[in-house]
Amino acid sequence: MFVKNAWYVGAWSDEIGDSGMLARTLLGEPVLFYRTADGTLAALQDRCCHRGLPLSHGRVQGDCVTCGYHGLTFNRTGACVNVPGQERIPPAAKVPSYLVRESDGMVWIWMGDASQADDALIVSHSFAGNAEWTFLKDRYLVNANYQLITDNLMDLTHVGYVHNRTIGGTPQAHSEAESKTSVTSNGVRVERWMMDSVPPPSYCAVHKFHTPRIDRWMEIDFFAPSIVRIHTGAMDTNTGAREGQRNDALLFWGFNAQTPETETTTHYFWSGARSHVPGRSIGEQRLDSLRITFAEDKEIVEAQQASLDLQPEPLVMIASDAGMMGARRRVAMMLKAEAVSWIQPVVPSKLDEVKA
Amino acid sequence: MFVKNAWYVGAWSDEIGDSGMLARTLLGEPVLFYRTADGTLAALQDRCCHRGLPLSHGRVQGDCVTCGYHGLTFNRTGACVNVPGQERIPPAAKVPSYLVRESDGMVWIWMGDASQADDALIVSHSFAGNAEWTFLKDRYLVNANYQLITDNLMDLTHVGYVHNRTIGGTPQAHSEAESKTSVTSNGVRVERWMMDSVPPPSYCAVHKFHTPRIDRWMEIDFFAPSIVRIHTGAMDTNTGAREGQRNDALLFWGFNAQTPETETTTHYFWSGARSHVPGRSIGEQRLDSLRITFAEDKEIVEAQQASLDLQPEPLVMIASDAGMMGARRRVAMMLKAEAVSWIQPVVPSKLDEVKA
Amino acid sequence: MFVKNAWYVGAWSDEIGDSGMLARTLLGEPVLFYRTADGTLAALQDRCCHRGLPLSHGRVQGDCVTCGYHGLTFNRTGACVNVPGQERIPPAAKVPSYLVRESDGMVWIWMGDASQADDALIVSHSFAGNAEWTFLKDRYLVNANYQLITDNLMDLTHVGYVHNRTIGGTPQAHSEAESKTSVTSNGVRVERWMMDSVPPPSYCAVHKFHTPRIDRWMEIDFFAPSIVRIHTGAMDTNTGAREGQRNDALLFWGFNAQTPETETTTHYFWSGARSHVPGRSIGEQRLDSLRITFAEDKEIVEAQQASLDLQPEPLVMIASDAGMMGARRRVAMMLKAEAVSWIQPVVPSKLDEVKA
Repeated sequence: MFVKNAWYVGAWSDEIGDSGMLARTLLGEPVLFYRTADGTLAALQDRCCHRGLPLSHGRVQGDCVTCGYHGLTFNRTGACVNVPGQERIPPAAKVPSYLVRESDGMVWIWMGDASQADDALIVSHSFAGNAEWTFLKDRYLVNANYQLITDNLMDLTHVGYVHNRTIGGTPQAHSEAESKTSVTSNGVRVERWMMDSVPPPSYCAVHKFHTPRIDRWMEIDFFAPSIVRIHTGAMDTNTGAREGQRNDALLFWGFNAQTPETETTTHYFWSGARSHVPGRSIGEQRLDSLRITFAEDKEIVEAQQASLDLQPEPLVMIASDAGMMGARRRVAMMLKAEAVSWIQPVVPSKLDEVKA
Repeated sequence: MFVKNAWYVGAWSDEIGDSGMLARTLLGEPVLFYRTADGTLAALQDRCCHRGLPLSHGRVQGDCVTCGYHGLTFNRTGACVNVPGQERIPPAAKVPSYLVRESDGMVWIWMGDASQADDALIVSHSFAGNAEWTFLKDRYLVNANYQLITDNLMDLTHVGYVHNRTIGGTPQAHSEAESKTSVTSNGVRVERWMMDSVPPPSYCAVHKFHTPRIDRWMEIDFFAPSIVRIHTGAMDTNTGAREGQRNDALLFWGFNAQTPETETTTHYFWSGARSHVPGRSIGEQRLDSLRITFAEDKEIVEAQQASLDLQPEPLVMIASDAGMMGARRRVAMMLKAEAVSWIQPVVPSKLDEVKA
Repeated sequence: MFVKNAWYVGAWSDEIGDSGMLARTLLGEPVLFYRTADGTLAALQDRCCHRGLPLSHGRVQGDCVTCGYHGLTFNRTGACVNVPGQERIPPAAKVPSYLVRESDGMVWIWMGDASQADDALIVSHSFAGNAEWTFLKDRYLVNANYQLITDNLMDLTHVGYVHNRTIGGTPQAHSEAESKTSVTSNGVRVERWMMDSVPPPSYCAVHKFHTPRIDRWMEIDFFAPSIVRIHTGAMDTNTGAREGQRNDALLFWGFNAQTPETETTTHYFWSGARSHVPGRSIGEQRLDSLRITFAEDKEIVEAQQASLDLQPEPLVMIASDAGMMGARRRVAMMLKAEAVSWIQPVVPSKLDEVKA
């Protein structure tokens, strides 16, 4: 069961070339992305209404897609505009279409009630393409429910254990970090400070610190139901980080979109952007180790999914679960609201009742 | 659910060598084909009644098969004739046997009520082995329900889309063909004429036409529940094809037996026979491109099955579905008749009532 | 459904090195074996109680295991002894632990009610490591229910059919063997004598017989629910085997532990020990052909499982099934006793009632 009335990342923009097609299962539904003659994106259910063949076996012609089995043609709204060999088009001949937007190099899709879609809800991530920063992105198909990835990101005490060979540093630094969790308009925010801590090897490899210990911070924003944006940084200790001073800081912005493919598989779109380090060439700014870091997370959540498949209960909560539990409550509230909306319209003032 | 009282193609004759065995799942049941001492075929359920081991792990001895686990021996009727180490054979010790016939290079099997079997219902295809024709055959294991393959064959407007790189020609020629569908004693016939049309590349490669456009015809016979025989041809346009003139025609006879393995997998036995083209050597008569053509169909129906698994409904009918719908109605009628026969004997005069 | 109150072989001792871990699913449950600081074995459920990650993704530290996700630490009893970042340990924070023993080079595990565990029930097999004998062992993961392997071992008439290329000899010799089945305190015993029989090729390859025919014996002991110990031997015919004379005999001791992984997969621990043949070097004592013999059994029971998955019924019993049926009755009785024990304590005198 997925939240339908929300923007999800369906693809990186550059995955869909000119006049190209991209077939991908999202939220359990087969989706076909394609570009119309003027280069704008369209998205249809990837299933011909005649005999069920995925439309991705056909081809794009102008603004339309023609099925590769018997040639029925559909426009970007999903209406059938041609049935070979007959004049009359059956009224039921149409396929569902979806709203799509392109923003910050990502393709966003709204698969629920189009009348509730609001472009302002698309989460911005302006650093994609910023020449002052080094940027790396990829998509991992993860064999786990999307919420297990959100859980992972919302509790960064895992960094000292899962990533101890890469970005971790000492586990103590993470578990003893000051942590504050708060509810936001669209989700949950976790703020963490690790003052006067030992820098992890991967930090020292890309940044010149002038003190043996550093101050680190992490701002983790969850936008329900599937986006986590993380702003982290590190500076020489006692040089004003807490007061907002950022000169000569190592900055890292992460953007994570965990879009359900099915209940137990997820398209995990991740990206990382890091401020250029002064005095280094572009070639020295590489972020390739991120591939390893996110693969470490993938391994953990996949093992977790397999274990929970075998035995989902019981689970015990600890203090650092606060962010994760907040995120899960938010998603549960959205699901409940959508279930209720089948009976009556949901108005904002009713959401609290639903939650309660 | 499959029609049981019918002849299905279980194998090509040459798949079962002298004293050899062939194990194959048909209609969801494990079947063992073997040749007895005099070379005639026998077919038993491939499951020893003692501990369930497939008999195909044992070996043929004379007219019998001996199980490879504890040595129980069964004759071609499925009766147990030996239990090692004991004199008495338990009355329940037997395995089901099936009727088998060999005809036109194919092994036919009847897995239902033997008392209803009629050899006259075996569909003939005399061109197998005819030296005046080039012949090619194969078996594809297709990951789709057998009726999706029948559907494919009964609506040849797909040729212009699925096979546009091989035997297709222009889609318009196919969708604008004159088409007539009629019910026959055993199934459905579709006749199609494509007069004055552009010859597809694959036709020109094997035949010398003397006019830039040609007349094409297709006679598609469905024999319920699983056989489709197709006679097609092409000639110089306006040289008498419609009147039955066939001199210097390119003729092609196809035979398709889609035998269910399971509900979602099918043994697709296909063959093609083409008249020799005068003036060409035997080596120039090759039909290898058929492998590609049938692989194109396989790809389509497998994608269709996966799509329908995800979402079977809704589907919209169009005009060219007439042949396919006729074939499906016929199979549904047979299934209904077999369901009713559990309660009362079905006599021919009752079939119409069942249908109604 | 498995008997829980029993000792199962969980591993060969040498599979778990110093400070190493071994993760293995047993009886459908994930188990983590590890050695504590002093080298003794411990076994925990391989599932952290916090977020479900298998503990085998973490690491051993002293007598404890630390989870590889957020660092919770458990001791050998399964009690949580540390939660990073918080003082208080939630009372529910614990994982199940299991009793383990090491004996004859095997790791034994008791996964049921610890209060009912009795070390005296561990089956001994003292030949492991005896320098006078040649010893070979391995573990096969078999895609079949564990009882199908027991069945195989309890009816050795299969040897003439399944192993006719290796240890078989003539099928007649096996099916005509004198056979006696009796119930023992813990299971079932089958004794078999094959007097004056033709020696199989594999026997002649490793032993010098002085007569063209030999006397063979087989003592098969089933210890419910999962152990089969087999003592076999062969001697020159008419030299006193029946009277207990064993000088210059070929002796073979087999030990088979079929531990369920799931309902349809089994960890099959097998070993064979053979008396050294006088006059041969150690290098000539090899038992490598056992790998082939047990692989032949694996192939049979896997084919049987697949066949029974398709159609479990009917099965017909024959005379040589006596040992197998006795073993199955014993396991059924244990299962019934455990089911009853949920309602009332089972005392030994009640077991007969349960059986009846």
